[in-house]
Amino acid sequence: MLENKNQSQTTLSDLGEFKLIEHLTNQIKIHHKSTIKGVGDDCAVLEIKNKQILVTTDLLVEGVHFDLSYMPLKHLGYKAVMVNLSDVYAMNGEAKQITVSIAVSNRFPLEALEELYAGIHLACATYQVDLVGGDTTSSTKGILISITAIGEANKEDIVYRDGAKPSDLLVVTGDLGAAYLGLQVLEREKQVFEVNPNSQPDLENYTYLIERHLKPEARKDVVKLLKDLKVKPTSMIDISDGLSSEILHLCRQSKVGCNLYEDKIPLDQQVITTCEEFNMDSTTIALSGGEDYELLFTISQDDYPKIKGNPNLTVIGHITEKEEGKYLITRGNQKIELTAQGWNAMKEE
Amino acid sequence: MLENKNQSQTTLSDLGEFKLIEHLTNQIKIHHKSTIKGVGDDCAVLEIKNKQILVTTDLLVEGVHFDLSYMPLKHLGYKAVMVNLSDVYAMNGEAKQITVSIAVSNRFPLEALEELYAGIHLACATYQVDLVGGDTTSSTKGILISITAIGEANKEDIVYRDGAKPSDLLVVTGDLGAAYLGLQVLEREKQVFEVNPNSQPDLENYTYLIERHLKPEARKDVVKLLKDLKVKPTSMIDISDGLSSEILHLCRQSKVGCNLYEDKIPLDQQVITTCEEFNMDSTTIALSGGEDYELLFTISQDDYPKIKGNPNLTVIGHITEKEEGKYLITRGNQKIELTAQGWNAMKEE
Repeated sequence: MLENKNQSQTTLSDLGEFKLIEHLTNQIKIHHKSTIKGVGDDCAVLEIKNKQILVTTDLLVEGVHFDLSYMPLKHLGYKAVMVNLSDVYAMNGEAKQITVSIAVSNRFPLEALEELYAGIHLACATYQVDLVGGDTTSSTKGILISITAIGEANKEDIVYRDGAKPSDLLVVTGDLGAAYLGLQVLEREKQVFEVNPNSQPDLENYTYLIERHLKPEARKDVVKLLKDLKVKPTSMIDISDGLSSEILHLCRQSKVGCNLYEDKIPLDQQVITTCEEFNMDSTTIALSGGEDYELLFTISQDDYPKIKGNPNLTVIGHITEKEEGKYLITRGNQKIELTAQGWNAMKEE
Repeated sequence: MLENKNQSQTTLSDLGEFKLIEHLTNQIKIHHKSTIKGVGDDCAVLEIKNKQILVTTDLLVEGVHFDLSYMPLKHLGYKAVMVNLSDVYAMNGEAKQITVSIAVSNRFPLEALEELYAGIHLACATYQVDLVGGDTTSSTKGILISITAIGEANKEDIVYRDGAKPSDLLVVTGDLGAAYLGLQVLEREKQVFEVNPNSQPDLENYTYLIERHLKPEARKDVVKLLKDLKVKPTSMIDISDGLSSEILHLCRQSKVGCNLYEDKIPLDQQVITTCEEFNMDSTTIALSGGEDYELLFTISQDDYPKIKGNPNLTVIGHITEKEEGKYLITRGNQKIELTAQGWNAMKEE
């Protein structure tokens, strides 16, 4: 589908690397005074005074992290930015700049890269982030995107993973499991399409799930919300690998235990109905599905009144002493030990 | 050779991503006070006061940028760091931190990644750079390395590509063409080996060339030298794509022309003799070979006495008005227009 069968399309080798970079970067808009120099020299130059700067990087590989047969390139570009911004927000920081490196095989025409960059530019505009550099090279197979995001925060505002204390509340933003189910729906449609190319997909019941998979949004709004509420979490992490795995990271780095309550885990109605349809357990999906890009954090109990009733924030458990272990308390009041493969843990039940 | 035939080796899938990262990063030493937090949270945290920070990123792809049949993994790791540091030095800055992202197929055992990281750690120790983060993921094919380097400089010290002025002198560090010839020698040996696996390579006459290809050194020393000499270049770039292409970048961004003198281009004796042996033109190799990771810069004529006679620095030409064009003046006093493919330009002669 993406191969260069259309003769009116421009091959990357016709264009050359230099013209390609110019072509892909000429619409960059700079949002921050701290961006002294963006694309066009050996390095970008940033100026940051009395701030700590945050750096994070993520790599997305075709065939491992995404499948172009149901991930449009524009969405892929958008999502690749979100994955990185989410890490900056998980430090309670403000994302300011990104660099984007792409390895792409010659089978992709220029128009494909333009689509990818359209998504990147849209993400930069929406989240007020400056694209300040990168590298574009050929690959022997498929597309790979490596993004580095740079953010800022005042020293006293930064939230690490290691600050959770016993009796702190465990809080999650948004709802969980939808992105994973969106992927399942798209994979099923792909299989149906392969059997019968004339079938028309009916995705009306899955719109939220598919959007959560194809166009996730990083929780910049939550960083602002916490500031407005005057709440500084004691620890924070983003949920990219599933709730269970991220809770274990927080607990391990904070040297604490936790109790997570199954009946508190926030689920969208589409998640519940689609889990029934697919005969999947919604708790398992929330614990291990991944790619939700929500934030998981802990707060002191003293801050509970400030967040109580906020529709963006759900208290799902509390922190305990390390020796007490890390547990899921089921609806039936069973205690099940959390493992990174919450999945398998659930199967063993 | 690198496939996991040895049963005592550890497969990456046995280990899991989390343990893999811990294993590869547990020997990291931190050199800079500005590194507040390195590997182990959503972001690295850096603190930089009254400095501008520099960010650069490069992507190296197996089969495109390197061939593991003659590039040992340790050298690859070292070189991948050099490629990025070179960009920071080309801004007249000091490299402080790097992030390293790697996509690697499961055919590589853990020991292969350890070798790669041994090279990365050696580069960090030698150049006093902190490894502060990264991402490790699987690929469907081969190895890909994406590195982002972060540096610092005082605002008034940063040198961009766009500051060259007519009558400025064009200066290059070290000598050119050796890295490209080193690659040619290694490729020839590979072909010989494929025909006759019992042949013993005799590489004694090519040691410098091979070292320049396999273990390039970024010119951190030149940044210090220029500071000691109290010379601030008017423009600077690193020579990764060959002299010709980099001169054109400088001239284009500075809106100037230039005259480059063939007889001034610094060549090592091994480059000259090996060019004769391979029946190649040494000027062509210096202009277009690439991967030398030397620095190309321009200085005001007033600064000439300060650099005169320094064995690290060679004046190879001067800057002219834009309208005068960009030329190579040959030994025979011919004027040949420089093109990005200095290669083809020479062939057309």
